[in-house]
This record gives sequence, C-alpha cells and structure tokens, in this order.
Amino acid sequence: MIRVGIYGVTGYAGYELLQILARHPQAEVVFAASESYAGQRLNQVYPGPFDLRLISPEEAPLEQADVVFLCTPHGASAPLAQKVLAAGAKCVDLSADFRLRDPAVYAAWYEHTHPAPELLGEAVYGLTEVYRTQVAGARLVANPGCYPTSVLLPLYPLLRAGALTGERIIVDAASGVSGAGAKPTPKTHFVSVYENYSAYNVGHVHRHVPEMEQELALYGKKPLRLVFAPHLLPVSRGILSTIYIQARPELGAEDLLALWQQAYAGEPFIQILELGNLATLAHVVHSNRCALSLSSAGAPGEFILVSAIDNLVKGASGQAVQNMNVMFGLEETLGLLV
Amino acid sequence: MIRVGIYGVTGYAGYELLQILARHPQAEVVFAASESYAGQRLNQVYPGPFDLRLISPEEAPLEQADVVFLCTPHGASAPLAQKVLAAGAKCVDLSADFRLRDPAVYAAWYEHTHPAPELLGEAVYGLTEVYRTQVAGARLVANPGCYPTSVLLPLYPLLRAGALTGERIIVDAASGVSGAGAKPTPKTHFVSVYENYSAYNVGHVHRHVPEMEQELALYGKKPLRLVFAPHLLPVSRGILSTIYIQARPELGAEDLLALWQQAYAGEPFIQILELGNLATLAHVVHSNRCALSLSSAGAPGEFILVSAIDNLVKGASGQAVQNMNVMFGLEETLGLLV
Amino acid sequence: MIRVGIYGVTGYAGYELLQILARHPQAEVVFAASESYAGQRLNQVYPGPFDLRLISPEEAPLEQADVVFLCTPHGASAPLAQKVLAAGAKCVDLSADFRLRDPAVYAAWYEHTHPAPELLGEAVYGLTEVYRTQVAGARLVANPGCYPTSVLLPLYPLLRAGALTGERIIVDAASGVSGAGAKPTPKTHFVSVYENYSAYNVGHVHRHVPEMEQELALYGKKPLRLVFAPHLLPVSRGILSTIYIQARPELGAEDLLALWQQAYAGEPFIQILELGNLATLAHVVHSNRCALSLSSAGAPGEFILVSAIDNLVKGASGQAVQNMNVMFGLEETLGLLV
Amino acid sequence: MIRVGIYGVTGYAGYELLQILARHPQAEVVFAASESYAGQRLNQVYPGPFDLRLISPEEAPLEQADVVFLCTPHGASAPLAQKVLAAGAKCVDLSADFRLRDPAVYAAWYEHTHPAPELLGEAVYGLTEVYRTQVAGARLVANPGCYPTSVLLPLYPLLRAGALTGERIIVDAASGVSGAGAKPTPKTHFVSVYENYSAYNVGHVHRHVPEMEQELALYGKKPLRLVFAPHLLPVSRGILSTIYIQARPELGAEDLLALWQQAYAGEPFIQILELGNLATLAHVVHSNRCALSLSSAGAPGEFILVSAIDNLVKGASGQAVQNMNVMFGLEETLGLLV
Repeated sequence: MIRVGIYGVTGYAGYELLQILARHPQAEVVFAASESYAGQRLNQVYPGPFDLRLISPEEAPLEQADVVFLCTPHGASAPLAQKVLAAGAKCVDLSADFRLRDPAVYAAWYEHTHPAPELLGEAVYGLTEVYRTQVAGARLVANPGCYPTSVLLPLYPLLRAGALTGERIIVDAASGVSGAGAKPTPKTHFVSVYENYSAYNVGHVHRHVPEMEQELALYGKKPLRLVFAPHLLPVSRGILSTIYIQARPELGAEDLLALWQQAYAGEPFIQILELGNLATLAHVVHSNRCALSLSSAGAPGEFILVSAIDNLVKGASGQAVQNMNVMFGLEETLGLLV
Repeated sequence: MIRVGIYGVTGYAGYELLQILARHPQAEVVFAASESYAGQRLNQVYPGPFDLRLISPEEAPLEQADVVFLCTPHGASAPLAQKVLAAGAKCVDLSADFRLRDPAVYAAWYEHTHPAPELLGEAVYGLTEVYRTQVAGARLVANPGCYPTSVLLPLYPLLRAGALTGERIIVDAASGVSGAGAKPTPKTHFVSVYENYSAYNVGHVHRHVPEMEQELALYGKKPLRLVFAPHLLPVSRGILSTIYIQARPELGAEDLLALWQQAYAGEPFIQILELGNLATLAHVVHSNRCALSLSSAGAPGEFILVSAIDNLVKGASGQAVQNMNVMFGLEETLGLLV
Repeated sequence: MIRVGIYGVTGYAGYELLQILARHPQAEVVFAASESYAGQRLNQVYPGPFDLRLISPEEAPLEQADVVFLCTPHGASAPLAQKVLAAGAKCVDLSADFRLRDPAVYAAWYEHTHPAPELLGEAVYGLTEVYRTQVAGARLVANPGCYPTSVLLPLYPLLRAGALTGERIIVDAASGVSGAGAKPTPKTHFVSVYENYSAYNVGHVHRHVPEMEQELALYGKKPLRLVFAPHLLPVSRGILSTIYIQARPELGAEDLLALWQQAYAGEPFIQILELGNLATLAHVVHSNRCALSLSSAGAPGEFILVSAIDNLVKGASGQAVQNMNVMFGLEETLGLLV
Repeated sequence: MIRVGIYGVTGYAGYELLQILARHPQAEVVFAASESYAGQRLNQVYPGPFDLRLISPEEAPLEQADVVFLCTPHGASAPLAQKVLAAGAKCVDLSADFRLRDPAVYAAWYEHTHPAPELLGEAVYGLTEVYRTQVAGARLVANPGCYPTSVLLPLYPLLRAGALTGERIIVDAASGVSGAGAKPTPKTHFVSVYENYSAYNVGHVHRHVPEMEQELALYGKKPLRLVFAPHLLPVSRGILSTIYIQARPELGAEDLLALWQQAYAGEPFIQILELGNLATLAHVVHSNRCALSLSSAGAPGEFILVSAIDNLVKGASGQAVQNMNVMFGLEETLGLLV
C-alpha cells in the first residue's frame, strides 16, 4: 500500500484526486489537508460519500507518507515541496511551480521570484507519455498544466519527427469551468456561464503559453511561437484544443497519423481516431484518456488537429496518479479509467 | 401595415421570425405555412402564446402579402421565390439559394443545379451593413448564413481598407444547437450535446465556406482562402467566431479599431468593444447586435478578432426583418432588440 | 415620458428592469444606483449595450423621478421607500419589506423589526391581476415574491370561488439560479449547479411561506397551511410550481378550468392551457406571462396544478413594470413581452 | 470469470452496463447485440474506447453466456428471457416485463397481454436491498424501474415498521433526459430541453405507478395510492424524488432516521444524510448509491423525504450488476462506484 498525503484537497483537482485514490487498489490516503476547510469533514464541502476529517496544512503528518500531492496554488506549492522532500517522501506538484525550467521565465510570467530554484534541476515534467523514464526515477514531478497536456500530446510526435514547418502554431482551445477553480467569482457564477461562451486571455498572455513553448522547443529542437486563444465553455469539465499546423507539404494525413501511431503504440491513455472522426469531450470526460484526431485544412501541408482531455483527469489528477504509478513501479492504469 | 407571409414557420428560423414580427409595430402576418405541421396550430408545435393556424405551402395566399420570408431548405426556396415574385410580392430568402452569385459554385457545393438561375442577377446579398443601398431597392434578398454574418462583419472594414495581408484567414467558430435545425437526430439529442463540445466539418468543407470566400474576395478585391473549423456548443443559440488575421505590420490595434469605428459609425446593431474586452455570447443573445472585439496575437500585425451574434437573430431572422425594414423604408430597428 | 429611478440596478432584478425599461416607449431612466459598482459603467458589470454611469445611492436625484424602483435587499428597501415617498415620487419595492401586512410576522421571519411600519397600511401587494384597482391608486407597491407569484395566480380563482377543501396545500417548486441572486457563493458556482438538482429550505421554512399563507388566507377567507419544497434548477431563469390540491369532490377538471377562465378573461399575461397540456418554462421564459395548467391526480377532487413564470419577469421586474403601467394609467403591456 | 451477454447494448442502459462491466474484475462480455446497429462497431455509435463489434440479436451465442442482460423494450424482453433461460443462462431483465406480478395489471398498463406469464412466478423483483436473499437464488431478475428505485428505497423501512399513516403518498420526481431513451424525438432535442423544465404524465398515469403501488402495498401490508408527478430535468442523468409523507404523529425526524439506519446498516450503496442536509443529484451521479434525506414539513407527523439516484446506475445498469454480483455470490460492490 502506498501511503498518500494531499495538500489542497478541497480544490477541484484535490477532490478529483481523492476520488481517484479512493478506487486505487494500492493507495491509501493518510492525510488530506485544506487551508480553507480545516476541521470540517470533506462531505460537508462536497456532496458525496467521503466522511473524512480535513486537517490544516500545518498538521500534516509528512513522516507517514510515501508520496504527497500538492494541489495548492503556484507560489504555495514550492515551499511545501521542500518540506515534503526533506521529510523523505516523493512529491507530485499539480501547480505551475516546477514546470518552467528557467526561473527567470517563471518570475516574468508569475510575477514573483521562484520560491525554490534549487529544486528546478531535479524536477521532471510529468507528461507521462513523453517523459516516462525520467518520471520513474523522479523524487519531484511537475504535473503538466491542463491546456499544455491537450496541446503537447498531439504535437510531440510530429515535432519529434521534424514533420512541421513554420515558426508559429495557432491553438484555439476551450475549457470547462472547473479549470477556473473552485473559488466563487462573478465569472464563475452559474448565470454568467450558462448559455454563454467566451474567450479570455487570448494571444500570447495566458500563463500556460511559456510552458507550452518550452516543451515545443524541446520536442522540435527549435523555438516555436504559440498563438493561444482559450475559451470558457458552459460545461463543468473537459478541454478541446483545435490546433492549426503546417506540415512539410509532401506529408499527407495518413503520414501524420502514422507518426502518432508509432509514438503512441501501446499507450493505454492515448486514443487515436480514424480519419474522418473528430475528438469530442464525450470521448474522454471522466477518463484519463487523450483523444486525438486530424483533418486536412484544405491545402497541402495544412492540417487541423483536434485533441480532447478531461481537464481534471488527464489534465490534472489522473495524470498525477499515472505519474505516481510510474514512480512506484505499479501498473500505470491502476485507479484510472482507460 | 406591411402584410407578411412566412414559409417554413415551424423551423427554428421561422419561429424566431414569427416572434419578432409579433412585436413589430408595422408588420402583420397574413399567412404562416408549414409543410410538416399544416393543419395544426403553432402553439401545438412550440410552447408559447401563438394560437395560429398553420397552412400548407400550397394554400399560401400570396396575393395578400407585400413580402414573403422563405425559411425553407436550400433547393426548396428558389422555386418558392419564383412564385412569390411572380405574385408581385418582395421576397427575403433565409436559405442559401441566392447567396452564391455563380450557379456553378452553387452546384458544386450543394450538389444539384440551381433551380432558378435567372434570379441570381437581381438577388442582393442581405448583409445589411454592407449592402444597405442595394437592399433598399431589391425585390429579392438572399439573407446571409449565420457563420458568414459573424465572420464578414468584422472583416469587411479591414479588407475594404486594404489592412490585411496574406492569402489565408483561419476562423475557429462555435455555434449553439439551433444552428443544426429542428429535426431530431442522434447528434442533436440532448444527451449527445450536454456536457459535450465537438468540432465538425473542419477545414474547407462546410457549405458556408464558398459564401464567405465570395464575399471576402469582393471586399478585399483579391481571393482569400478560408480555413474554417466550426464547433457545436452545448447551448441553444449564439455564434462566437475567433478569427486569426495578419494585418500590415505597421498597423496597431487602435488602427484596426478605428477602421471598425469609421465603417460602422451610427450602426445600431454593431457593438464595438473597447480594447481589453472580448465579445461573448452574453453580449448578443436575443438581440440583433453583432459584438466585435480585437486583441493582439503577440507579434506585429497579428491579431485575433472575436465576433459574436445570436445565430437566430442577426444570423437569420433578425437580419431578415432588418432587411425588410430597409426594403420598405421603415426605421431599421423596428421590431428588433438593439 | 415617465421618469424612472432605480436603486440596486446591478442585481439580477435591477438589470432585468433596466432592460425592460430600455424598450418601454414611455419610460426614461433618470438614475441607476448601485452600492457595489458606483462610479463604474453598467456595461462593465454586465456584457451588453448599456453604457450607463452607475451612481451611488446617496447621489440619487430623487426630485427628478416620477417613480422609483427598489431592487435592494429586504431591510435596505424600507428606509429608501421612506425617502422616495418623502420626495414626492411613487415607489415600487421589489424586496419583501412591504409584502407582509403584519410587522410581527415580518419580524419573526426576517429576524429584525420592520424599518418602516408606518407605511405598511398604505402598501399595496402588487399581484396585478388580483389587486389592479388598488395598484392603480397606490403610492407604494410591494412587488410580490417570485415563488408567491407562481403559486398565488393559479390558486386565487379557486380559493375565491370556494372550490378547495382541506387545510393544507403542497407546493413543489423549482427555480433557476438567478433567483439566488448575483452574489457569487459556493452554491451558485457553475460547477455546483450544472448537472445537479437539489432541494433547499423545504417544509415550512422558506421566507416566501408567510407571504403565500397571508394571501391564500385572504383569497379563501380561512387559514391554509402551506407545505413548500423549493428546488434549485440548473437553468438561469424560470420557476415551475407543481401544486397538489384537494377540490370539492363534485368539481371536475373542466369546472376548475372554467374558474380560471372567468377570473382571468382578457388578462394579457395569463395563459391558460387546454386540458392535456402542461405548463413548462419554455412557455414563459423572457415573457411576462404566467402559464397555467391542471390535471387530475387520479382521485375525485384531487388535482395537480402546474404553473410557470419567468422569475425575473413576471416574478420580479416585469410585474414591477406592469404595476408601474397601472399606477400611471398606461396600457398595461407597454414594454413587456406578452 | 462470469461470461456476460447483452441485448440492447446501444440504448443508454445497455451502454452504461457495458461501461460498468468493462471495469468489473470478474466479468467478461461474450456478446453485445443491437437491433439498430448490428454489424457496426460500438465506438461508431458512442464516442469512446469500445471497439467492439455489435451483433444482431439473432446471432447471439447464448450457449457461451452465464448471464444475459436484457436492455430491450418491454414486450421484446419477455420472449428473449424465455430463450435465455432455455439456454441455461441466468437473466437480468431491465425492462418492465417481469416487474408486475399480476399479468392483468401488466396488460392494463402496457396495453398488450403478457408474452411470458409462465415466468412471472419465479421472477424476483431486483431491488437488491429489499430482496437480496431471493435475488441470490434467482434465475430471472426483474430489475426495478428508475423512478421506483428512488421512491421505494426511502419508503421501505418506514412502511415495514408501520410508521406511516394515510392512504396516499405524493411523489414529485425529476429525471435527467437519458431516462427518456436514446431515440431522437422533438421532446429530447437539445433545444427543447435546455433552459427548460417540464412536467409530464402527472397524476396516476405513468407506467411506473403500478410497479410502485405493488411494492408499497407489500411493504406496508395494505394498499397505498400514489400521486406521482414526474418532471424532465435539463441534465443528462439523475433522479431526485421529493416525497410527502404522513407518519404516526408521535414519530419525530430522529425516529424515522433511526428506521432508515436500522434497515440499511452496512449497506454499501445507501447513504443516509444527517438531518439538515438534503440529497442532491451531485451526491450520486455516476455512482450506484442512493442518497436519502428527510425534513419536517412543518406539522406533527408530516415529513418530506428527498431521495437521489443516478437513473442509469442504481436506477438501471448499476443495480443490474449489483444483482448479478449477488446471483453469482460475488462481492456486491464489484465493478460499481460506492
């Protein structure tokens, strides 16, 4: 039994994580901490069966945990990671604190200096299908952002193979409201979102942009500029990314599909659709899968990729458990819906 | 009082039209025809206050109408337009039958020869803000498609001014389910759409593509290729188009905004948002407005336009009434929500 | 032109009221006050076309108004009503402050003493169809609650005619989320409501209970106990009340229907459905109508009434404007969707 | 490994069943039959990971199955049950064919004579918590209807204990759209349901009424008349039943709660909420739980019960698997979310 601790269990990612771990046959939650709801029981916060006492972060019995998940905000995660590692446990951080390799880039986008730069060198970017080997040996995993997961998985095989040309990729993406967090605000009020659809942070300003550009540059071995337009969908969960790419003109749809199939052969959580089908949220919601599809954009070398994930599962807590499974040598699908 | 006839009143566009006309102070519905529901009363088809007998298309008393709206499918509209004009009434066709100026293009995209090519010469494309003068003198108006309305209104002022470069424009658009029509299908079943989001007909295959390319070429005086990715939103109504453009590099956001403001000064149905705000469905649903916004895409000359309309109002029946108002010399906003 | 002032314009009822008044041909808004957003423009709070400066309540130029609407919380409304009347304007209060005739009942349910008991004598309960004559002569109208409007309109004709027996009525009602107000809370977060349905304040505890019991006793000339179970619907607007009644056993469905038809003959906002049809939210949303339907419950004298309104229109701001129209001798439907 | 066959796998209950069985550690699907989609693959019908060939009902290799689930319509199920039992397999029927013990009642409500009356004697009504012993020994289980499950589970302990008085119970219930089946109709079109809420079949006419009255009479050892008002919720799944009861006047809320706790001690799928909390769809969606809550209705002996289930899980396929687990002596929670 792997003994698991959770910080930030009353956020959406934290609660999703707890639900996944509850059906994981080899994990046991030893503590669930919440700054906002310490002292209450979890089923007073979320309707459901979890009659679990929430502790304050200070009370966390780190010495009892083999692995600790940080479902805490950026800035708050890094100091917790220091404590977790010092206590001898492994750590999976779901915040952005260890995703950017360059602390200067972090400081520029998150507007404060990095709280634990000494850990950046060993942190592994936990896009499991790309970095499985490194994850297996990691003490500290930086779990990818939700949008980046949906964008990087379709692009990785194509960039790695040198199939893409041009210096810019346009990503038009849409996320369910859980991606905006559990804090009630005018923007997440039901009446603001229902019957509505809206863009936000479009262009080159969303904080997931540097994370995606960092990874794309590594996969393609050259810088790529992203144009990124996220939208807020009137649903609770799911991300659909529509990606406009330019491939080498001699490559057809079948060639690109073959690159996906080679890169992801045997991957339990990658679902590659046949030509003519397009990925939808319904393909993936509540599962840890990423569904991938591609279509011609009407001219040689121009293609549209559509990629779908559940932002709370493959885009957050599901991938975090997938990484835990890899870190502890377990079967990678344990606890997760394929 | 303008005497109005409607064919196809039990489709979504037809029913929306009837609701608009019911609050129009100078219009009176003299007949409402429905192939599927002839003989029934309208409030048996749609819950609501309209206790109106539906006639069959054959019974339509054309001689009593000053103007007739065709809310009928493409292919069916053109022969009706011939009858309407022969009876001496004006005609606003909400189908695609008279939108494409070239019958060969029509035949290629709609897969049958044009049923009334002799009328193509006089049909006016009813994008009111662009073709107001021609609409005023028209006997036959081809009411624009819903996606085209949302795409052409933001692009017209920029193309007309020669502000755009490049030969390709990417449009990522999302529509509410009423855009798919009232016919029940597995794809429009509530359970298929709720909690879902999906792309369809992406690339260069949606039938609104030739309509948009025709108009864009006229506005910019050179051909432009569209890459078009429509999506199905889990809402009933509204279209949001996110448009990726390349402007001449010396032009800033304020310059493009100024082009919009000049082109649309005094327009009651065009709402230009200040920089920093983005158009949403909530800006426009149930109104005849088109909300326009623009943002930098992060590099000189690259911009993202976001445009929103209600697909059933400005994208169909509202614009049809706006055109009727222009055709009969009435105040253009009569019956419509600004 | 009637000069109108609004306090509390940035709540849902206030914003709906402003939208209605914007299309009212004989009303002009002279001030729009908001405690929370004073100094901002209305279109910065709600997406839409209203580029209107919000003033603080203290700045309100009461002397310029013929009528003032109070879209403010209970407790805050009563002192404002005193000021409005002192300034010589008429007043329509959308809060609960003047709905209960007995200040002791008010104190018991709202947990503070009534702030202006001297006005209770002249306040008219603004259920227009029931109290039209009194509304016409009123200086101060207490606009009914949303649930009460949906419950009292179906019961008034039956109670007035002595058609009902028993001492208890069960009302199972469901409201859209706008009924919970614009303040963001965990309960109104999109993710809490979407895909969910829940009961709240069931039994005899909701604050609309004494308001309904007061009126029912007046209509039927004897006390009636209400069992009231409100529910939260995952929609933005609308109330559907399902009401379980016991009629005198000799009365059939047609008899009850006849009582409705007599009581509401000529009423523009009451839609009585034929037997076999049931009222739905789709009948009434965005209109000022109340749709009424009735069915047998399977035993003599037992019936189920289903009543639907838009909580923001007939349940709040629409009825408030209807009352204003009556108070100023205007056509009752002005500005309102029938 | 239990070898499982499914008829009607492309209905909502059938597809849900397949998803549950896919994560059941001791079940293996040996055939999946569909009348409408025979010859296609399951992932062509529903987006998702199931690349499974659908066979026609005639091809079903009954001899390979230990148990067969009938997710077929009433009338069609009974003849299939005959074949399944003749082939030596056990049978769980999700239709209404074996729920009513009296074939005359069946004929009256379903408007045709019972196709297999000889099996009625041995069929066990599969409300697992009530009939577990009988289910364990059954060859043929009649899986309960969705509404009945949500209504009978809260009432069983109270009736069994003789706690209720009166001859009538009012049930106001609301179901997600999947309860209406996968067939596209005008009533299940997204646009008809979204933003809407409606009652249907109210009174004593819904086909689940005789099923509930049959069971209630058995539990309470006297006939009880049901007044039943089902509603259609704008969500995909879930049933919430609000039940108005009259208990013996000396019984308080704690007494009734104690009856629930005694009856359901140790039940993995019954969640009894503390007083002051109310069951919601969010408590149960995607799980096989039934959440139960109770409140005073404001007078001695009057209470309101609120009960929630997922109509596709505890209300259909989840309970069917629960029954299978009991029939084969497996741990009852296998494959199911607690």
